[in-house]
Amino acid sequence: MNPPSQGPPGDLPPEEFRRLAHEVADWIADYREGIEGFPVFPDVRPGFLREALPADPPRKGESMDAILEDFRRDVLPGITHWNHPSFHAWFAISGSGPGVLGEMIAAALNVNAMVWRASPAATELEEHTLDWLRGALGLPEAFRGAINDTASHSTLYALAAARELAAPEQREVGLSGGPPLRCYASAEAHSSVDKAVLTLGLGREGMVRVATNRVFEMDVDALRSAIRRDREAGRRPMAVVATIGTTSTTSVDPVAAVSEVCREEGIWLHVDAAYGGPLALLPELHDLFHGWEAADSVVVNPHKWLFTPVDCSVLYCRRPEALRRAFSLVPEYLRAVEEGGTDLMDYGVALGRRFRSLKLWFVIRAFGLDGLRERLRHHLELAGEWAARVESTPGWELAAPCPMATPIFRWIGDGLAPEEADAFNEALMNRVNRTGDAFLSHTGVNGRVALRLSIGNIQTGRRHLAATWSRLEHEARALAKA
Amino acid sequence: MNPPSQGPPGDLPPEEFRRLAHEVADWIADYREGIEGFPVFPDVRPGFLREALPADPPRKGESMDAILEDFRRDVLPGITHWNHPSFHAWFAISGSGPGVLGEMIAAALNVNAMVWRASPAATELEEHTLDWLRGALGLPEAFRGAINDTASHSTLYALAAARELAAPEQREVGLSGGPPLRCYASAEAHSSVDKAVLTLGLGREGMVRVATNRVFEMDVDALRSAIRRDREAGRRPMAVVATIGTTSTTSVDPVAAVSEVCREEGIWLHVDAAYGGPLALLPELHDLFHGWEAADSVVVNPHKWLFTPVDCSVLYCRRPEALRRAFSLVPEYLRAVEEGGTDLMDYGVALGRRFRSLKLWFVIRAFGLDGLRERLRHHLELAGEWAARVESTPGWELAAPCPMATPIFRWIGDGLAPEEADAFNEALMNRVNRTGDAFLSHTGVNGRVALRLSIGNIQTGRRHLAATWSRLEHEARALAKA
Repeated sequence: MNPPSQGPPGDLPPEEFRRLAHEVADWIADYREGIEGFPVFPDVRPGFLREALPADPPRKGESMDAILEDFRRDVLPGITHWNHPSFHAWFAISGSGPGVLGEMIAAALNVNAMVWRASPAATELEEHTLDWLRGALGLPEAFRGAINDTASHSTLYALAAARELAAPEQREVGLSGGPPLRCYASAEAHSSVDKAVLTLGLGREGMVRVATNRVFEMDVDALRSAIRRDREAGRRPMAVVATIGTTSTTSVDPVAAVSEVCREEGIWLHVDAAYGGPLALLPELHDLFHGWEAADSVVVNPHKWLFTPVDCSVLYCRRPEALRRAFSLVPEYLRAVEEGGTDLMDYGVALGRRFRSLKLWFVIRAFGLDGLRERLRHHLELAGEWAARVESTPGWELAAPCPMATPIFRWIGDGLAPEEADAFNEALMNRVNRTGDAFLSHTGVNGRVALRLSIGNIQTGRRHLAATWSRLEHEARALAKA
Repeated sequence: MNPPSQGPPGDLPPEEFRRLAHEVADWIADYREGIEGFPVFPDVRPGFLREALPADPPRKGESMDAILEDFRRDVLPGITHWNHPSFHAWFAISGSGPGVLGEMIAAALNVNAMVWRASPAATELEEHTLDWLRGALGLPEAFRGAINDTASHSTLYALAAARELAAPEQREVGLSGGPPLRCYASAEAHSSVDKAVLTLGLGREGMVRVATNRVFEMDVDALRSAIRRDREAGRRPMAVVATIGTTSTTSVDPVAAVSEVCREEGIWLHVDAAYGGPLALLPELHDLFHGWEAADSVVVNPHKWLFTPVDCSVLYCRRPEALRRAFSLVPEYLRAVEEGGTDLMDYGVALGRRFRSLKLWFVIRAFGLDGLRERLRHHLELAGEWAARVESTPGWELAAPCPMATPIFRWIGDGLAPEEADAFNEALMNRVNRTGDAFLSHTGVNGRVALRLSIGNIQTGRRHLAATWSRLEHEARALAKA
């Protein structure tokens, strides 16, 4: 590829790139079409790939044909297929066709939209598409959006902005001299909230876990008491994180009541709707979102349940000036030299920013709001059917209500003791996962193991779930007899 | 696309996706081949795209053909073309062919490699490829790598790990009760270090800017004094950030001497080689890296100068257990249920992780180490030629040494007064950028405006730089006469 006599070294020759791009396009189309032929979870053990690959990188360039061949032979067999309609672990996601096409083009453009002039169209498409989404979700116009890679970072940024308001002096002198700050979230909130609180320098004690009721929703009286206790002890409440769709059970905190507490107490409210947020597109589910319009910040992940490939986490913030105060530091080499648009780098830690809005724009337009709604409703319907099946079949029970599309359930047989049931369900999950026919994950519900079946892939239909149910039934009864 | 009578709503039909994927593949190939036909910087003003797009998203799905057409008509004219061989702003980057193919496949696989089992091949390819790169860069085996989106996050994570060691008690109780912590970096260090220090709760005072010598390298005596002063005042030194290739002038801190200070003082050393790191592949430049092997952490961005599309920032850490202590919090729903491999989510804030190693593996293999070296040397050569041209042409001067491939220079005419020269050079840059023929950025050097011409795109050759030089000369002399 690099004969030294041919002048300066460059990229792949154009015709070779074109041939390879078509080959890859075909491979992708074949892969998507044949996805059900792959085991969802690969039959490999730790180290399988590292042992297969050469210890050292090549000195001389190799042909892309050989590299693609190695990809298919060595890498592909170790992929967990998140595209498989029977992938139900954690939260099931979708790299939809329009989204994948968007990523292909974004990769080719390779812009880094840190400031407006670094790519005006990338900045403005991000603002515009997020305004579209904001309106469709029913959030007020005051919310300004920006795309981050993950909800973990979105939440970190939101809480950094909360810190700016709760302890403005810390921006100069740091937290060292000031009062201990406190964040509140329910016992069911995501671990990324703890990570954010740790990162911000509040320590593990900075994160106050508030008790939940018996259906895993934040107990607002307990929240009030916790805040009161902290104030009395000289600690300063900084933010409350309420969740719409917790990761463990998809429970929904009473956001309206929480927002009332935050208003009274003058505390930042961050709503983690990373998973559940897209459901705000459905008028019939508006109750789940009651009060979120009063939040200071909201995170919604289109890469979870809005058919957009990873990564795409949207942070909406009603106080963008607090985000800017937390993060805007403009050195000379980044200063805009002419009247410019928005510089999105000012709203978070990351300076570099991929052109992530392109895929989201493709997805929203290709499916339309009605098409997105139709797909979400289909998943809700399938989840309802699964829950009904669990409830009506002896030996099984629901371990939590199912307000979204992730039924939580377990095998209890003919009255297994709790410890036995824990071991049984974990073993059952591993057995099913090892078949490669379906892939589930587990969680802890009131300290006991339960299975999670997240329905969120765009290709998942009744026949897939029927097959997975048969498989679970079969393995459970086999295991019960063993 | 969604006739309700056809059963459950799904994705694009396979044949339609295949046709579109080929169409997009062709568009990408055309775009790459015709890149020089685009203006590097678009002739648009803020708001151009938002005004062109409909205020509301569509309710009904639209055809991808129409969407792609709108992309070409409305979005493309507002793109700043980072792929253009005459893009020289900030740091010039390359979405090389192998890298773009890697991103296409990664988008299609859509895995989220937060834990080993979430996609064993993605985790292991990341570990393996980063080991390859580590070895090629000459870093010791003790360094463990992980890919983040940006150097801003990599540096944040590294400093969070430093905080774990400097103030282990803060993990429980937070920074509030403890001594003020301090980070040190040169006056020329990147603004992302300030952002990280702010985010970690150290405040602006937590960031100590150490003076540099006249060629913008950290003054190690000044560093020692700053540390001593802080210790005497009861403040606790936490980390030093040394830079190999600063953003403003690509200067190189004396890492060996800095590392000696860090060893004596027991302070974490983070090396920011986000830009300069790839030069460690060149044996003839090993002096630039002298001492970095003693660092606690090093960041190198393959998406800057290693021909890999954004985003791909590698954080190498010699104390991964400190990173784990800073970030590992494993809730039940993420706990591995069987003997597993590495869970990369434990080494940073982000839980979700794209399959970013695939493109890097493609790039390293397709070019080979020798091919990468050849391309880096070519850029260095071009930069040397540019610097020589500046030095030998009346009216111009170099504003800083050029140890890498980003000459820093300015028009001084026949002895312009400093304020006049500042305004002149800024005006000159804007004039050149507005032609669309080349795109430069500026910086401040000793408080005076200078132009930056970063040479890092894989397609940049002598003829492009000759044309840009002519353009600069022409515009400068026209402006001087005006």
